[in-house]
Amino acid sequence: MRYAVIGTGAIGGFYGAKLQRSGLEVHFLLHKDYAHVQRHGLKIYSKDGDFHLYPVHAHADPATIPVCDVVLIALKTTQNYRLKDLLPPWVADQGILLTLQNGLGVEPQLARLVHPGRVVLGGLCFICSHRGAAGEIHHQDYGSLTIGAYGDGYQPQGVTPLLETMASHWRQADVQTFLAPDLGYARWKKLLWNVPFNGLSVVLSATTTEMVADPHIHALARELMEEVRQAAASQGVAIPTADLEQMLRSTATMAPYVTSMKRDYDRKMPLELDAILGYPLAVAHGKGVALPRMTMLHQLLQHLDRHNRLPGEEAPEKVSA
Amino acid sequence: MRYAVIGTGAIGGFYGAKLQRSGLEVHFLLHKDYAHVQRHGLKIYSKDGDFHLYPVHAHADPATIPVCDVVLIALKTTQNYRLKDLLPPWVADQGILLTLQNGLGVEPQLARLVHPGRVVLGGLCFICSHRGAAGEIHHQDYGSLTIGAYGDGYQPQGVTPLLETMASHWRQADVQTFLAPDLGYARWKKLLWNVPFNGLSVVLSATTTEMVADPHIHALARELMEEVRQAAASQGVAIPTADLEQMLRSTATMAPYVTSMKRDYDRKMPLELDAILGYPLAVAHGKGVALPRMTMLHQLLQHLDRHNRLPGEEAPEKVSA
Repeated sequence: MRYAVIGTGAIGGFYGAKLQRSGLEVHFLLHKDYAHVQRHGLKIYSKDGDFHLYPVHAHADPATIPVCDVVLIALKTTQNYRLKDLLPPWVADQGILLTLQNGLGVEPQLARLVHPGRVVLGGLCFICSHRGAAGEIHHQDYGSLTIGAYGDGYQPQGVTPLLETMASHWRQADVQTFLAPDLGYARWKKLLWNVPFNGLSVVLSATTTEMVADPHIHALARELMEEVRQAAASQGVAIPTADLEQMLRSTATMAPYVTSMKRDYDRKMPLELDAILGYPLAVAHGKGVALPRMTMLHQLLQHLDRHNRLPGEEAPEKVSA
Repeated sequence: MRYAVIGTGAIGGFYGAKLQRSGLEVHFLLHKDYAHVQRHGLKIYSKDGDFHLYPVHAHADPATIPVCDVVLIALKTTQNYRLKDLLPPWVADQGILLTLQNGLGVEPQLARLVHPGRVVLGGLCFICSHRGAAGEIHHQDYGSLTIGAYGDGYQPQGVTPLLETMASHWRQADVQTFLAPDLGYARWKKLLWNVPFNGLSVVLSATTTEMVADPHIHALARELMEEVRQAAASQGVAIPTADLEQMLRSTATMAPYVTSMKRDYDRKMPLELDAILGYPLAVAHGKGVALPRMTMLHQLLQHLDRHNRLPGEEAPEKVSA
């Protein structure tokens, strides 16, 4: 069994390293850290135990990656406009695509890049991890994976034998793995958390703990979650109100966490706004559902994002201000 | 004609100085800068010409202020909980109260502090000014004053002979003065600008020019204005949509401006949230009108305000986070 990892960051590096450690052959596509990782391998600092992955099949060019059974897409979604150039050429016909990316709308993007009928899976990572120095990944907390099969418009596909096979690889790699018969439900449910907490962490410069401890922000997070629930309902996905309350409670008890969007912001990287807010808002608006708070959060974040980026990281449609 | 100025900052200092320069007797209540102003007077750096006011009737204690015909209230509204101690004792029976404060709901606060039937006027300052070093006030732009009479629940009082007299003082002091037959309308119309631009300037760390140049924030500002319009309508105050469009256009052409709320934030002072957002939201909620964007802006600003204040500037109800 061979895996390719497109994007060797906090997610791709961590999960790819676990797969290789379990005995699978894994090929990593790298950019900035290619030479370093080629020479020194990957160092994983994990709450489950540190380990050093060496040697590593490192690639600077997708064309050198041999044909693999599974291709993990672990780029930031803001880089998806480059996907066509970052996927190995054989992907259109061979290999299962499994995206580990955030938000909603990444699977249909992938499906459009490959021949019709090719298998596209979505993976949701419930993990607190971030990059350190070159070739170093820090895994703070959690680490489970939920996998579901993508069907046009997020039609539920049930649990297929392929999903069961995938799960067995991951479990052998010591990754707690769940199978989602309805990938759309899983994606919307994750947005329930990502929309308020990723979004507000940037606007307020706050950790999860600071946000839920403030009654005003606790109330706002709940109201944003309610709007995510309405957006999901507009797509035929029913999220029980109890899920929302449970998520608020568990956020209040987790260790203070700087969200991934806040980390991107602090590093002056583009924010994953399309996947977390833009696409969900667009599909809900398509059904005539108005979501004032989510829209306002999106408006605020687009402004903050544009004014935050480093030169050269600007989107082509940047508006001068 | 004698005036007292309670709060000698960017507003009270500027307008009080103009009144004294025109020949009226003006008594200034000061706190931090008392000794400096007592000794050196006030220096006004104005786009209409600088001037030095000396000598000045400076007071550190409201009890030393002689009975005046008019008492100008020019404190930040965040200090209004101290008003009872900052007003001269004769105010309950003598003198006309004229508040130059921001937002909505300050006149009923004043009315409750004095004997029933005492005259309370509201003044709206359209001015860009700020404090500099001790005893120094910088007046950048605009400078007009709109005065209206307060009646219970902002019932329109029309233009009274008293208002005409007041206007004649101000005009002699070279202040462009307008009379508002409906103070509530004037207050709500000013909120149309203050809610989006004061509020968003803090959340986004942006000038007016940066905000209106961003199409997302321009859209959000219009949506917030629309909610202010709905809130006003719930109080029987009709604001034409044309006012809103005109205000957006004039903001786009004014010089880049750091709003007063952003200046307070940068100086780590408490923000005028009750007058600009809390009270307007409360009266609209009282009529069953939901205002999701204004509410969200209020929630965000309450969090930012609490985490921004200097030690000792915290409100007693501070929530630890």
